[in-house]
Amino acid sequence: MTTKPAFLQQLKTFSKQIEDVLEHILPPPATRLHEAMRYSVLGGGKRLRSFFVWAASQLYDVEPTQALKAAAALELIQSYSLVHDDLPCMDNADMRRGKPSCHKVFGEATATLVGDALIPLAFETLSSLDVTPQIRLELIESLAHTIGSTGLVAGQMRDLDQEEWPRTFMGLVELQYLKTGILFGFAMEAGAILGSASVTERNSLKAYGILFGQAFQMKDDWLDGHGDEATLGKPAGQDAEKFTFLTLLGPDLLHERAENSITEAIRELHSFGERAAPLREAALYVMTQGK
Amino acid sequence: MTTKPAFLQQLKTFSKQIEDVLEHILPPPATRLHEAMRYSVLGGGKRLRSFFVWAASQLYDVEPTQALKAAAALELIQSYSLVHDDLPCMDNADMRRGKPSCHKVFGEATATLVGDALIPLAFETLSSLDVTPQIRLELIESLAHTIGSTGLVAGQMRDLDQEEWPRTFMGLVELQYLKTGILFGFAMEAGAILGSASVTERNSLKAYGILFGQAFQMKDDWLDGHGDEATLGKPAGQDAEKFTFLTLLGPDLLHERAENSITEAIRELHSFGERAAPLREAALYVMTQGK
Repeated sequence: MTTKPAFLQQLKTFSKQIEDVLEHILPPPATRLHEAMRYSVLGGGKRLRSFFVWAASQLYDVEPTQALKAAAALELIQSYSLVHDDLPCMDNADMRRGKPSCHKVFGEATATLVGDALIPLAFETLSSLDVTPQIRLELIESLAHTIGSTGLVAGQMRDLDQEEWPRTFMGLVELQYLKTGILFGFAMEAGAILGSASVTERNSLKAYGILFGQAFQMKDDWLDGHGDEATLGKPAGQDAEKFTFLTLLGPDLLHERAENSITEAIRELHSFGERAAPLREAALYVMTQGK
Repeated sequence: MTTKPAFLQQLKTFSKQIEDVLEHILPPPATRLHEAMRYSVLGGGKRLRSFFVWAASQLYDVEPTQALKAAAALELIQSYSLVHDDLPCMDNADMRRGKPSCHKVFGEATATLVGDALIPLAFETLSSLDVTPQIRLELIESLAHTIGSTGLVAGQMRDLDQEEWPRTFMGLVELQYLKTGILFGFAMEAGAILGSASVTERNSLKAYGILFGQAFQMKDDWLDGHGDEATLGKPAGQDAEKFTFLTLLGPDLLHERAENSITEAIRELHSFGERAAPLREAALYVMTQGK
């Protein structure tokens, strides 16, 4: 497996474009709250989740401006979730994306409010897309369901209550689906919704996203045992006391499982032929890198 | 001014109906998170904000089931905002609606996640209403804007940073608009949106809501100086060190100002004639009661 420059180039171009869009969606830094929102959203992250909204939408020639706006909505959600996950009462993380976490800079109350404000901003962004009302509503409904109490929030809750859940492979798969895979699944599904994809194609793309997310998380666990702080953007080894794919499987079996998930993810792209090349390359790329 | 039994009877009937709707919208208490969501939303509060969604919508004969569902979405938002406002890093309140606050019972992390889950549930509820896609989108856009970083969240932020703002009457009016009036304004506007009201009527109803909210908050400040714990659902006098309408105006002038706002609110209902009777009565009622 080798890194494919075409995908990397696309991701790089996309990162710049999404940064511009986010810059416009976020309010100007006139208040401390808005400053903290910008601090938490702008200038950080690989933008991988939002890239998938764009990449999936381009299978259907969706108008790029609208695809970018929808992708930006997901990036707002991803940022909210990181800011709240880092709070002292949650994971109590001091660093995020290579800089101090939001609450370390702006305080706990502001960090809580940053998340509270980013969620409605994501929905406002989707509701004002220049696409049909039906597509906007499908995106809103799917996002709301994805990040709700049986989705993303359930994942964070379960992560905090880990000792109450059975320490099995399937238990971890479910936890990581809720914490990570579900957003990658939504990203791909959002692209399909924007493109008015058939149910079959929408399901395939969503499955690709979920499997990709699974491999991504496995690789992240693996890296936590092997990576250095520069690659991770946070201190390595901080999950050592947690129950992770690494502690359960060990490095070799974990790597194999991740590769299996990637193979399965790529299989979901079969019917899309050559146009899905960036998505195939993204899947292969995850095996060579960390977050 | 005397209490009008017709309005009180309507509010009582409505409270029971909205409780049933919320009971169905909230997930069953199968996990601690869902239990905490139900604890925070069900069985408490006068349901005054959501009542206004319903009351405004009935000026237009909106189908009651859909009006109740939309009203429930606002009740979810109101509950999220109370749960997050009560957090130790915010107002650090131990009691709410006469019982221990969510974080006192379920812990800080869970309380944070309860709020994080109630927000998308509100949007999911609106997106699945059985009304035209355009009406659903207008409700979603208006709610998102109302509770975002220039609305409800800005109000909470400003409340926390009170010493950074000028201690003037207009400063307080703006703060209380963002903290309270804006949700009453949205409630009335939501009813108007559901009823496909004209722009003029929509603006009048929204203005009524905002003015009602102002009087409501003034009365609340006044009560904090005069009420007892049973009326307030929380210890009296706990705002004594804060800068409030009461500390600025004193009880007599404050009461006069609140009455002025109520008179202005009622004036906004002029063109609706007899059908707006419950809304008129609600406005008069606020002067006789607390939260």
